[in-house]
Amino acid sequence: MAKKLPVSPLAPAGFPVMPAIAGVRLAATASGERYAGRSDLALITVSPGTTVAGVFTRSATASAAVGWCREALDHGDPRALVVNAGNANAFTGAIGRDAVRRTAEAAASLTGGAPEGVFIASTGVIGEALSVAMIEAALPGLYAGLGGDGWEDAARAIMTTDTYPKGCTRTAVVDGVTVTLNGFAKGSGMIAPDMATLLAFVFTDAQVPAAVLQAMLATANSRSFNCITVDSDTSTSDTLLVFATGTAAPEQAPETSSKTRYRNFRGALEALLMDLARQVVRDGEGAQKFITINVSGAESVKSARRIGLAIGNSPLVKTAIAGADANWGRIVMAVGKAGEAADRDRMAISMGGVAIAENGMARADYHESMVAAHMRGREIVIDVDVGVGRGRATVWSCDLTHGYIDINADYRS
Amino acid sequence: MAKKLPVSPLAPAGFPVMPAIAGVRLAATASGERYAGRSDLALITVSPGTTVAGVFTRSATASAAVGWCREALDHGDPRALVVNAGNANAFTGAIGRDAVRRTAEAAASLTGGAPEGVFIASTGVIGEALSVAMIEAALPGLYAGLGGDGWEDAARAIMTTDTYPKGCTRTAVVDGVTVTLNGFAKGSGMIAPDMATLLAFVFTDAQVPAAVLQAMLATANSRSFNCITVDSDTSTSDTLLVFATGTAAPEQAPETSSKTRYRNFRGALEALLMDLARQVVRDGEGAQKFITINVSGAESVKSARRIGLAIGNSPLVKTAIAGADANWGRIVMAVGKAGEAADRDRMAISMGGVAIAENGMARADYHESMVAAHMRGREIVIDVDVGVGRGRATVWSCDLTHGYIDINADYRS
Repeated sequence: MAKKLPVSPLAPAGFPVMPAIAGVRLAATASGERYAGRSDLALITVSPGTTVAGVFTRSATASAAVGWCREALDHGDPRALVVNAGNANAFTGAIGRDAVRRTAEAAASLTGGAPEGVFIASTGVIGEALSVAMIEAALPGLYAGLGGDGWEDAARAIMTTDTYPKGCTRTAVVDGVTVTLNGFAKGSGMIAPDMATLLAFVFTDAQVPAAVLQAMLATANSRSFNCITVDSDTSTSDTLLVFATGTAAPEQAPETSSKTRYRNFRGALEALLMDLARQVVRDGEGAQKFITINVSGAESVKSARRIGLAIGNSPLVKTAIAGADANWGRIVMAVGKAGEAADRDRMAISMGGVAIAENGMARADYHESMVAAHMRGREIVIDVDVGVGRGRATVWSCDLTHGYIDINADYRS
Repeated sequence: MAKKLPVSPLAPAGFPVMPAIAGVRLAATASGERYAGRSDLALITVSPGTTVAGVFTRSATASAAVGWCREALDHGDPRALVVNAGNANAFTGAIGRDAVRRTAEAAASLTGGAPEGVFIASTGVIGEALSVAMIEAALPGLYAGLGGDGWEDAARAIMTTDTYPKGCTRTAVVDGVTVTLNGFAKGSGMIAPDMATLLAFVFTDAQVPAAVLQAMLATANSRSFNCITVDSDTSTSDTLLVFATGTAAPEQAPETSSKTRYRNFRGALEALLMDLARQVVRDGEGAQKFITINVSGAESVKSARRIGLAIGNSPLVKTAIAGADANWGRIVMAVGKAGEAADRDRMAISMGGVAIAENGMARADYHESMVAAHMRGREIVIDVDVGVGRGRATVWSCDLTHGYIDINADYRS
C-alpha cells in the first residue's frame, strides 16, 4: 500500500501480552523486498522433536509456498518457519518454486535439519517474481536476533493490508501440566478461506502427536477460519500451521486416550482460532461493522455454514448494513440463492435480537424503528432459522464500504 | 430510489425504434404503488392462440409471482402480462399469493380467458406487502389505453434502479415469412441470474409451438442471461418470458423439421437475448466499465462459464478494473477459487489483446504500460486459457465502484 490505512474501528484494544514458549524463538526485520520503512520478514524456529499440523488453501492456483508446505508437512520434522509479506510468490512458475527452495536451504543452513524442515509462507501481490536474494541476505541477521518474546514483531512483519497485528494466547491443561498456546494471523482482503485461512500460526509447548494435532486442527478450523468471510475471494496462499514443541510434557505421560488427554487443549485451540479468525474479519478491508450471522434450522451443520456464508458474502446485505439499513429482504434473497434446503414459508429472521419475520413474512408488530439503534452500532447480529432441520452454524463477516473500493482500486500503486 | 441516478456511461445511444407486432398491445401508467412521478405498472396483452415459454429464478425463496408464472406456463393459454416495479411481492406469505391471484383475476376480467392466462412479474423491495388495490384500480385505464407502439413506455415502467430502459428488436425468416422479435428487460443490481434473469420479455409474431419455443429459450438463455453478473446476488424474482402470437404465420406451413424451420429464428432470439443481457450489465449499479471475459481451455462449456463467472464476480477483480489497474494476479486467484479444473502451470492470460502471462507465469516481455490505455477505457476484455480442455464461454460483468456502495447502502431511503 502506498497510503497508510487508519486502524480499523473494530480493532481490539491492543496486542495481547504473549509469554515465551520454550522451544520457540522469533525475529522480524525489514528485508526491503517490497515495503519501505517497515518489517516484512519473520523467522520463527522450533526445537527438534516438534510436531506440526497444517491446512491450506484449496485454490487450483495455489502458490509455490503452499505446495512446498504440503511436502514439509509430510516430511514431519519442522525446524523453522519463514514468512514474507508483500509478494505472494504465486503464479511465478519455476522461478517461484526455485525461490522457495533457496529460502528453505538458506534457513536450514542456519537452523540445522533438512530444507524440508523449513515451512514457508508468502502473501501479497500475485504474479511478480520474489527477490529471493534479499531474503537470503536477511536470514543470518534474523537468526542472530532470535528471541522468545518477539510475538508482536512477528505478527507485524507478516501484515499486508492489515491495519493491526493479530495475536491471541490461551492456556490449557494436558496431563496435569499447564501448557500455553500462542497464535498470530494476518489477513484483511481476499478472505473467504476454503479449508484454511490466509496466514495463521500457532505454537504450543504441549506434547501432541502429529496425527492428533492434525485432527484437532481440522475440526477447530472448520468452526473458525472456515466460518469467516470479508469479500468472498479465496487466496492462493492460505496457510494455517500449528507447531507443538512438547517442551511442557511431563516425564511420564499417563495412559489415557487422546480424546480425554487433549479435551482441554482442544477447547483452547478452538477458542484461540476463533479469536484470530474474528480479528481477521474485524480488520476486513474498509470494515466499519462486524457481523455475526447465526443460522439454525438447516439440514446440516455444513448446510447452515453455506447459508451463513451466502448471507455474509452478499454485496447487497453487506452494503445495506454499511448504510445502517435493516433491509432484511436481502437476507431472504441470500438464503434463496445459497443452493441449500430452506422452507420459504417457515423461515424466521431477527436482527439485534428483534424478531422481524416469521413463517415466511414480516411480523405484524415489526417496525424498523425497533432495530434502528442496533443497525447504527458497530456489532450487528443476524439470526436466521430456515425451517427445515436442526443444523446450526455461526459465520462472521463485515460490511462493504467505500473503504473497500478505495483500498482495492488502488492496491498496487 | 429517493435520488435520481445519472444515466450509466455505458448506456446505448437510445432506445431502439421497435415496430408493432400484430397481436401484442401495451400500456404503462403510474399506479402510485411505490414511486412518485413515474410509471411503475405495465399491461401487455397477447392475442388468443399465442404460445409461451419461460425460465425463472432457482432461488429457494422465489417470489409469489414466480410461483404463479410457473403454473401459468403449465396452463399454456397466455392472454396478458402484468408487471409492476418497486415492490417484489417476495417473502410476503399468503398475503402475497393473494395479491397475485387478485391481480390475475382483475386482468382476466378485462382481457378474457382464465386468470391462469395472466402472467405476473414484480421486482423491487423484498418483504413488503404489495398494495394490490392500487394495481386493481389502475388496470381498467391501462386496458383502455392499450396500443401497438408502447414498447419504450413499457420498458420504462418496469425499471427499478435501472438508469435507462432496455429494448432490442430483431427479425428472422420463418417459412419464407419475415417475423419480428421485440424484447425488453430491466435489471441493474442483484444480478447473477441462475437459469433466468431479472425481468425480460420477448414478443414475436412467429408461429412457434410452445415446446419448440421452450427448448430454444433454454439454450439461448444459457448463452446470454446466464452468462452475466453484476454483483453475484441472485434475485427472488428472475423471470424471462417469450410470447409467440403466430400472427405472421403463412396459411400453410411447409413440412420441414422444427430444427430447419426455426434455424434463423433461433439465431435471432439468441442475438436479441444477448443484446438485452449486455444492456443489463451496462446498467450495473455504479458501473463505469463493461467487462467481457472469454474463457477457453476449460474441461467443458459449463466449466468455462463457471470460471468466467468466478472472475466476473470477484470483488477484487472488479475493484482493480474500477481503478484501471491491470492486476491480473487477481484473475489467477479467481480461476483458482472457481472449483473447476485448471492447470496453473499452463494457464495464459491476456487483457485488451495483450499477452500478459503464459505457462503459469508472466511473460518476460510484458510490461504494464502495454495495457494501460486499455485499462483506462470503458470496454475491458479479458482472455483466459486454463489449459486443460476445449470448453469455451464468454461472460459479461462490470466494475465495482463507489457508485454501487452509494446506491445500495441507501436503496430504500
